[in-house]
Amino acid sequence: MTGIRQLADHLELSIGTVSRALNGRPGVHPATRERVLQAARELGYVANQSGRSLRRGQTNTVGFVVESGHPSNLGGDNFQFATIDAMNLRLAEHGLDLAILPCHSADDPISFLARTVARGVVDALVLTATRQQDKRIAFLTRSRMPFLTLGRSATPGDYPWIDLDFFGVAQDSVARLVALGHRRIALALPNRDVALAHHYLDGYRAGLAAADLPFSSDLVLRVDSSEEGGVALGGLILDHPAAPTAVMVCSEVTVPGLYNHLASRGLTAGRDLAVIAFRQSPPLRFLSPPAAGYDLSLRDLGHELADAVADLLAARQGHLSERPRTRIWPMTFCDSPSLAPPGRKRGSSSSS
Amino acid sequence: MTGIRQLADHLELSIGTVSRALNGRPGVHPATRERVLQAARELGYVANQSGRSLRRGQTNTVGFVVESGHPSNLGGDNFQFATIDAMNLRLAEHGLDLAILPCHSADDPISFLARTVARGVVDALVLTATRQQDKRIAFLTRSRMPFLTLGRSATPGDYPWIDLDFFGVAQDSVARLVALGHRRIALALPNRDVALAHHYLDGYRAGLAAADLPFSSDLVLRVDSSEEGGVALGGLILDHPAAPTAVMVCSEVTVPGLYNHLASRGLTAGRDLAVIAFRQSPPLRFLSPPAAGYDLSLRDLGHELADAVADLLAARQGHLSERPRTRIWPMTFCDSPSLAPPGRKRGSSSSS
Repeated sequence: MTGIRQLADHLELSIGTVSRALNGRPGVHPATRERVLQAARELGYVANQSGRSLRRGQTNTVGFVVESGHPSNLGGDNFQFATIDAMNLRLAEHGLDLAILPCHSADDPISFLARTVARGVVDALVLTATRQQDKRIAFLTRSRMPFLTLGRSATPGDYPWIDLDFFGVAQDSVARLVALGHRRIALALPNRDVALAHHYLDGYRAGLAAADLPFSSDLVLRVDSSEEGGVALGGLILDHPAAPTAVMVCSEVTVPGLYNHLASRGLTAGRDLAVIAFRQSPPLRFLSPPAAGYDLSLRDLGHELADAVADLLAARQGHLSERPRTRIWPMTFCDSPSLAPPGRKRGSSSSS
Repeated sequence: MTGIRQLADHLELSIGTVSRALNGRPGVHPATRERVLQAARELGYVANQSGRSLRRGQTNTVGFVVESGHPSNLGGDNFQFATIDAMNLRLAEHGLDLAILPCHSADDPISFLARTVARGVVDALVLTATRQQDKRIAFLTRSRMPFLTLGRSATPGDYPWIDLDFFGVAQDSVARLVALGHRRIALALPNRDVALAHHYLDGYRAGLAAADLPFSSDLVLRVDSSEEGGVALGGLILDHPAAPTAVMVCSEVTVPGLYNHLASRGLTAGRDLAVIAFRQSPPLRFLSPPAAGYDLSLRDLGHELADAVADLLAARQGHLSERPRTRIWPMTFCDSPSLAPPGRKRGSSSSS
């Protein structure tokens, strides 16, 4: 196998420059870094892990913790796959590999993290599905394992995070529905304790307040993040005493099941019930009619996560000293016929 | 943290018994193993990795290599998630953790495996998406890293594998379509070089031969494993000079796109084109009409994979000496209205 010395000789560069390029550290011209990474790929460069471990305690592997055992994973959520995909490709440019670490819902998340930290097989961790009070964040802060989170948390700590704009999207969704004439707007949340549901709910309340509409907890519906959950959601809405004319859906994986239940009752999204999802994932564009929602580039998000991890590792080594970066990711509204004024059938019912 | 000695004291068992139970090795009564694992969870047992590594070179982590950067991953394939989920849970019973290692299609698979082996962060690997000629198998055989494959390969080696019954399902699908009166049966394959496509094609040819029908390579269509690929498939079938009356679909993720294209031409699966998928995944049951296919328990498959890995590691330590196990996984036919006799519109066209 090709080592760093052979690689440096081949490129006629110093070992230090090659090392910095391979490890995504600053002080290397992008073109030089690209040349080093390409030669490393072509020559089959393999880092001397034992030397590296002794020197810096590194495996050059980033762990991405996902929750497994939840219905949403069985329903085919493309969000994580597409984001991880892009993150993986960008991490390679930083000389880092990715390991997805599934923590089963039947396992204790702290025991899981304790094992992961004790084994020392990753240099940094990315946590997802953050809770408002997240004991994993407290644990990792104590363990001194570098980490960032995809999703905010109210748990304090000096860690970087990136979060999608659940608050802003919910607020904007209410405004759009109100502008179309809706007054009885249901909110569908995942029935798990995840921080994003709090932010989506807060944005919904803020949107209602801005439109001088009352908040009614009866209109907040909680279902499994799955197609079956969407079918259940359809039943809750159609049989709801307040006869909501619109629904805002936090988990887009429920939308196909919702459509299916509407169809079973002879109803159509848009015409009979306005539907707007948090995220307009690709499957939602194949529905009839396509479902409205908010788009983001999962590729850009994956790149941002990779760059944030690389910065975190560089900071840990004293190469960067900036504050942990935190970022709320913007989303772009995508209109669609599922977003329509209150329908004749349901809009005319008189319950308010 | 609780070590193995404290755990053994607490359970009033020998350290050897506790170690065997934790590591999924034979010679421990299932009830005892369960008691040990439960106590380990309750007491927050963390293995002493340095001691373990010196003694047996183990990290108790299994790497599951997935290909990333392919359209099928973006389309929301639940197969891998659900299988990995069940495997993860069963591995925990063997005292093993799982790390999903995404190898990007832009990366060289051998460099990727060389890095993974050199880092020594996993005890064994599971390979997926096997090729008929798979250089990864040859590499891992040389590297002496224990591995098994999900999917057969023509590449020789003394490794265990589990494969779904692509051949048998394709053969059975042809027989069912022929019994309904179909003669012009299209075959949709992924346009990637994966071994499963070869087996599905071979089963199709065997089914045609058994029915005394000619094989025509014109009816073998290759599209991306994605919803967009399904839309393209719809175009290829509807504009095909031979006017196929049925299609067998290897990648079930293409079926929603196929339905969508049919609908855009005023056609319906079943009535106008018989559709039978290799696997009847949950989203296919939500289509209108639900798509026929073959079912399997991804939970059972995940458990089988986990047990096979545990056996592989036990064999490596001299505790088991059996031959690598190989298994073709059976599938169960699930009927649905998408499987119907040739329709009036298309069945009556005279091209054969």
